[in-house]
Amino acid sequence: MSAIKDSVHDYITLDPLAEDLVDAPEVQRLRHIKQLSTVRLVYPSANHTRFEHSLGVYHLASRALDHLGIDGDRARHVRAAALLHDIGHGPYGHQTEEVIRRRTGAHHDEIGHLLDGTDVAAALVAHGLEPDRITSLVRGEGELGQLVSGELDVDRMDYLVRDAHHTGVPYGTIDTGRLVRELRYRDGELVLADGNVQTAESLLLARALMNGTVYRHHVSRIAGAMLERASERLLDTGDVDIEAFRRMADHDLLVSLRDHVPELGRRIERRDLYKRAVWAPIASVPANVVDMDDTETRAAAREIADAAGVDADEVLVDVPSRPSFKESRTRVVVNGVVQRLEEASELVTGLRAAERAQWRLGVYAPFDATDDVRAAAADVLGLSEIRVDLGR
Amino acid sequence: MSAIKDSVHDYITLDPLAEDLVDAPEVQRLRHIKQLSTVRLVYPSANHTRFEHSLGVYHLASRALDHLGIDGDRARHVRAAALLHDIGHGPYGHQTEEVIRRRTGAHHDEIGHLLDGTDVAAALVAHGLEPDRITSLVRGEGELGQLVSGELDVDRMDYLVRDAHHTGVPYGTIDTGRLVRELRYRDGELVLADGNVQTAESLLLARALMNGTVYRHHVSRIAGAMLERASERLLDTGDVDIEAFRRMADHDLLVSLRDHVPELGRRIERRDLYKRAVWAPIASVPANVVDMDDTETRAAAREIADAAGVDADEVLVDVPSRPSFKESRTRVVVNGVVQRLEEASELVTGLRAAERAQWRLGVYAPFDATDDVRAAAADVLGLSEIRVDLGR
Amino acid sequence: MSAIKDSVHDYITLDPLAEDLVDAPEVQRLRHIKQLSTVRLVYPSANHTRFEHSLGVYHLASRALDHLGIDGDRARHVRAAALLHDIGHGPYGHQTEEVIRRRTGAHHDEIGHLLDGTDVAAALVAHGLEPDRITSLVRGEGELGQLVSGELDVDRMDYLVRDAHHTGVPYGTIDTGRLVRELRYRDGELVLADGNVQTAESLLLARALMNGTVYRHHVSRIAGAMLERASERLLDTGDVDIEAFRRMADHDLLVSLRDHVPELGRRIERRDLYKRAVWAPIASVPANVVDMDDTETRAAAREIADAAGVDADEVLVDVPSRPSFKESRTRVVVNGVVQRLEEASELVTGLRAAERAQWRLGVYAPFDATDDVRAAAADVLGLSEIRVDLGR
Amino acid sequence: MSAIKDSVHDYITLDPLAEDLVDAPEVQRLRHIKQLSTVRLVYPSANHTRFEHSLGVYHLASRALDHLGIDGDRARHVRAAALLHDIGHGPYGHQTEEVIRRRTGAHHDEIGHLLDGTDVAAALVAHGLEPDRITSLVRGEGELGQLVSGELDVDRMDYLVRDAHHTGVPYGTIDTGRLVRELRYRDGELVLADGNVQTAESLLLARALMNGTVYRHHVSRIAGAMLERASERLLDTGDVDIEAFRRMADHDLLVSLRDHVPELGRRIERRDLYKRAVWAPIASVPANVVDMDDTETRAAAREIADAAGVDADEVLVDVPSRPSFKESRTRVVVNGVVQRLEEASELVTGLRAAERAQWRLGVYAPFDATDDVRAAAADVLGLSEIRVDLGR
Repeated sequence: MSAIKDSVHDYITLDPLAEDLVDAPEVQRLRHIKQLSTVRLVYPSANHTRFEHSLGVYHLASRALDHLGIDGDRARHVRAAALLHDIGHGPYGHQTEEVIRRRTGAHHDEIGHLLDGTDVAAALVAHGLEPDRITSLVRGEGELGQLVSGELDVDRMDYLVRDAHHTGVPYGTIDTGRLVRELRYRDGELVLADGNVQTAESLLLARALMNGTVYRHHVSRIAGAMLERASERLLDTGDVDIEAFRRMADHDLLVSLRDHVPELGRRIERRDLYKRAVWAPIASVPANVVDMDDTETRAAAREIADAAGVDADEVLVDVPSRPSFKESRTRVVVNGVVQRLEEASELVTGLRAAERAQWRLGVYAPFDATDDVRAAAADVLGLSEIRVDLGR
Repeated sequence: MSAIKDSVHDYITLDPLAEDLVDAPEVQRLRHIKQLSTVRLVYPSANHTRFEHSLGVYHLASRALDHLGIDGDRARHVRAAALLHDIGHGPYGHQTEEVIRRRTGAHHDEIGHLLDGTDVAAALVAHGLEPDRITSLVRGEGELGQLVSGELDVDRMDYLVRDAHHTGVPYGTIDTGRLVRELRYRDGELVLADGNVQTAESLLLARALMNGTVYRHHVSRIAGAMLERASERLLDTGDVDIEAFRRMADHDLLVSLRDHVPELGRRIERRDLYKRAVWAPIASVPANVVDMDDTETRAAAREIADAAGVDADEVLVDVPSRPSFKESRTRVVVNGVVQRLEEASELVTGLRAAERAQWRLGVYAPFDATDDVRAAAADVLGLSEIRVDLGR
Repeated sequence: MSAIKDSVHDYITLDPLAEDLVDAPEVQRLRHIKQLSTVRLVYPSANHTRFEHSLGVYHLASRALDHLGIDGDRARHVRAAALLHDIGHGPYGHQTEEVIRRRTGAHHDEIGHLLDGTDVAAALVAHGLEPDRITSLVRGEGELGQLVSGELDVDRMDYLVRDAHHTGVPYGTIDTGRLVRELRYRDGELVLADGNVQTAESLLLARALMNGTVYRHHVSRIAGAMLERASERLLDTGDVDIEAFRRMADHDLLVSLRDHVPELGRRIERRDLYKRAVWAPIASVPANVVDMDDTETRAAAREIADAAGVDADEVLVDVPSRPSFKESRTRVVVNGVVQRLEEASELVTGLRAAERAQWRLGVYAPFDATDDVRAAAADVLGLSEIRVDLGR
Repeated sequence: MSAIKDSVHDYITLDPLAEDLVDAPEVQRLRHIKQLSTVRLVYPSANHTRFEHSLGVYHLASRALDHLGIDGDRARHVRAAALLHDIGHGPYGHQTEEVIRRRTGAHHDEIGHLLDGTDVAAALVAHGLEPDRITSLVRGEGELGQLVSGELDVDRMDYLVRDAHHTGVPYGTIDTGRLVRELRYRDGELVLADGNVQTAESLLLARALMNGTVYRHHVSRIAGAMLERASERLLDTGDVDIEAFRRMADHDLLVSLRDHVPELGRRIERRDLYKRAVWAPIASVPANVVDMDDTETRAAAREIADAAGVDADEVLVDVPSRPSFKESRTRVVVNGVVQRLEEASELVTGLRAAERAQWRLGVYAPFDATDDVRAAAADVLGLSEIRVDLGR
């Protein structure tokens, strides 16, 4: 068994199957997909990739399985799924997810057809594993699937500490050692053992603080919106088809955008970004705007551009989905009884409200156009407030 | 100017006054008072002392003053107060605070009379500083006193990261760099600049998680209650007077207890601790019990011991004060307006409820006596539930 | 002044000039050039870039200047030079340095002509700085140039700790706080103050350990040799000229290689690397081979390929330069007298010998061809030993 | 199995025997013995104890045994020995080692008679272990004893990283993960696997740098010499016998010294330390002085005091043993052959010379007396140079 040095978990020991999987082009490609896509434009040290994240998830899955006493065939499937859980990501990860979903209907955790005929599938079969079980685990299905994708999955545990290590923002430093030790199965459901309400809360709190400070930083959101628009334009040219697109790595997309959508491509590459024309809290946004789908959002952007007299690509409307909070359904044992965290913790209600308070609709435009775009957007979207937050 | 290497802040540069103050016996004594007193019985690495904590507070005060643009005489007083803020602590810090307060009426932040005739006072005067201003700053008085003791003080910033470093529990890793940069004065009040609601929240969240996991761990509370009882017994012997007692360091008290209160002294030294007979949430405790003062608590303990037929020193009743939450009054600027954090943050309500949910009344006794004591305590205190939490 | 969060130095405060320089495309390009080029194929977390490294060097330069008491115009030039010191790097940094040098004669620290007509030059002039002085400082010229490039430069201090943080290999964790505090000027030369022989040794030891473990890891050297060969082939096609080449970023080169040199390009992208056919210590290599220049090396590779009956691109001969050890000339004050470290430290001789013992000539080829290539290489190069080291 | 949170190794899982051993008073006593005794007077954060160090050694022993494939009865004995290896230390660890050895003949690793009739021995027997085997392992005897005490023992691995964590000095940050993975047995000898010459070197280099910067810092040596003299005086009073003395913890000794040897006791407690009158390199010290035994050293101190006209306790002569370098005998596999590190590494010679260059004879006295003592010492000891190093 070989070992890989990781900056977060120290040595990660690979089993023979993992060694073969790591060598497959589909996994090597993850070396070229950054974990936090455009966040590096705010936190310059955040250049880590989905490759080392996948190794980290594999490592935590191994440790969790050890503590849960699960071994043999079942454990091997879970470990492989942990290693492969991100191969369905397109270039720049979550930032192209919607573009891909609109054109293929597929979410990044649907990796089934991506396995067909690959070295990954061959390695799985050669080691006696079933690709279909892997696909199902990556989707979070079944008892063991919860370890790979669910409220208490090891994916989240790895990314929080890894993102903290690489951004320098300390809020993600959860206690992964405690988390993997306290996992239990109760009636087929993954739960945290008794005495861990705070452990569960710490996971939610870490996410909430990282959301506000890192994941949803406005500069990253602006660059992400520019990247999504540029990707749409690239696909509209017809020079790149969606199947090729989703198999690109970050560098492929960056070069393609520069070649085919030069204005936006150059801006992204050089961090010459649009600015906020609007940054509006949820209370100031009409419900029908909050719930707009992509088609409607793009139509609104065109309408705003028209009204403001600027080029269509110079207005981006960025409407996040309504704040949800699925981690509040994390299961914890409290004095012997399994509860949802939202029942056991008074903090969850507060976090839910805080998530709502942080929600912002953004309208972005080149610096010179922000005043015109702001006025047009307020009108087109019917905003009661167009506040652009002070502070960072 | 000399520099001291610190495990948390790297090099701490001392100004000439600080060099002189550090050499005074009153400050050197802090080398022998552990920051977390009995917490080390749960987290064995937590042996750090109030000496390096005081240096850390001095360091953060210096950085905050730099960012606030405060220098000269005012800054020198604040830095000195930061360095001296803990010299009023008795042995084992907070654990003997109540014992001392009951017999002297003095709280640990009242250091005035402790300065009289000391090397510390001499050093202050020699450097042109006024001891009375230092005393006032340590009490948190005035505009600048808020930096030393208040909702946004540098004391808290240092102890959270230091306690995290030494316990290994990651929850205290706040962003001190950001905090000291974002401090501002608005109308004489210390606030966080615009864009920092989450920064303020992170401070409260770190405290809340450290409270549950570290500061109020039941093993530490048990040892603390034993130490307090033993200290009372020691003072009752009349061999040690209160003025000598409050000037002791940890090692003095440990040896004194072993000599004068051998049973409890030995138990504390060898970590042969009482166990929980009762660990009851606030909802199960009658209001008059929650609000008992020390005299009543000790009377209740004697009554329980009588009823259970055990020695008076074998029952400890530990009633924390009602959950309060003064940090919720932290001031933050939100879109140009100063607000209390409880107004600006939806999280605060949740945290307040979580604090209340974590509150526990404890009754402790030697392992063999826990069953008898539990029954007696439920009866004497009128508890509707005597739950002893599972988990850690 | 704005502040950037860095994973190594926490907050880095930028002066107004630095803010403008950072926005220039020439500096933004460094976001796309990895600090350790092919090392990430061994240490997957090592994806940090020359952008954050440049910010770190700027930060340490600022702190060193503060401690040295240098400010005003001179300090501003040094800080700008620190920030710009790496803009002369081609894609994949040191790995293409030789390719560029052979075709342009320029070393990466000659940034003069790269400044002509750029936003960087404009920003320098707008802030009243002289581009020529910057160019000179980056070359390490003059008293202050030693801070930017010399035995005690802040470049080295930053990369050692940064590379340790991102690889997870602890050997680079030097005490930068102490180093910047102990710098002094004596007769125009940068030295370490008295009492710092060990501080100077620690810098050399950290480099030596990082060399063996990280910087000269054979997998990284193999990938580097493949990249250099592929770059030569790319330039040979005539589709890319050298001036465009040296301004590429990593992603440009990766895509260009895949398009124009597909076999090697794909292998690099997918980490499908050649293996060691020969890995010979210096004692087993004839002196004329150790001293071969590039032309001779490539001729030897072709001769070996012919003899082994494989394609010319399937043999790479990698002859590092003779071990040198310029850090041994670091100046330290010993009891008041400036000495070279090699005079003051007995360790330096040992380190020099250790560097020599670590030197290896490598011949690399596709796995299937290693046996044939090994035999041919031994013959062509006249090696007395073709040892391929065991171990990692 | 229970888990203890450690600031260095995260969670340490205890087997049932370890849980029982940890509860024994002989192990709990280690909570009150600081790992670095007087080093905390230089590095104020260095308050960690032999208790958490012993847990750390236990943890690394467990991991090493796992990697070596050793389990069952043999592994249980090694783990227990690792946990118990330091229970033979007197108060302030190494600082009282000589005092104890002179009066009992026993070294701290001879724990046999300390086990007689203890809870530790009872626990060992109850779990089916043989106390004699433990005693032998702690002395480093036999194949497995090398893991506990030898050139590659886990004791050293733990203390280097732990001392770095707590002092803040980065030089001790070795790669323990790699070290425990690369241990092998070859012909009954513990060795590092092939490819690890640098791994072995890193261990020596870390020790050498920590020696100069931390372990042999002159302030710590001065306090240590004062403590040793005071301990002699304490034992001379006859109020404390040697068997009680060696079972003291730090706090017992500190209070005893203050009561029985008030002048020195108060000085140690308040860090009011002697200063260097002489700090002479080995070349300036006559060979017979370098080789003086304790009786001769104390006689010389008295003679110097007489000559200088000061009190006998005001002169301390501190002659370290001649530089040795047993780690140079570490075994490493090089291309399949086991070698001593001194054969495989050119660095070892340099390190040996550096150790010699760092050696210093110290003569210490109260500040006011240093000039007189210096002159007298030069005369009595026949020093050719009495250099007191500048710098820290």
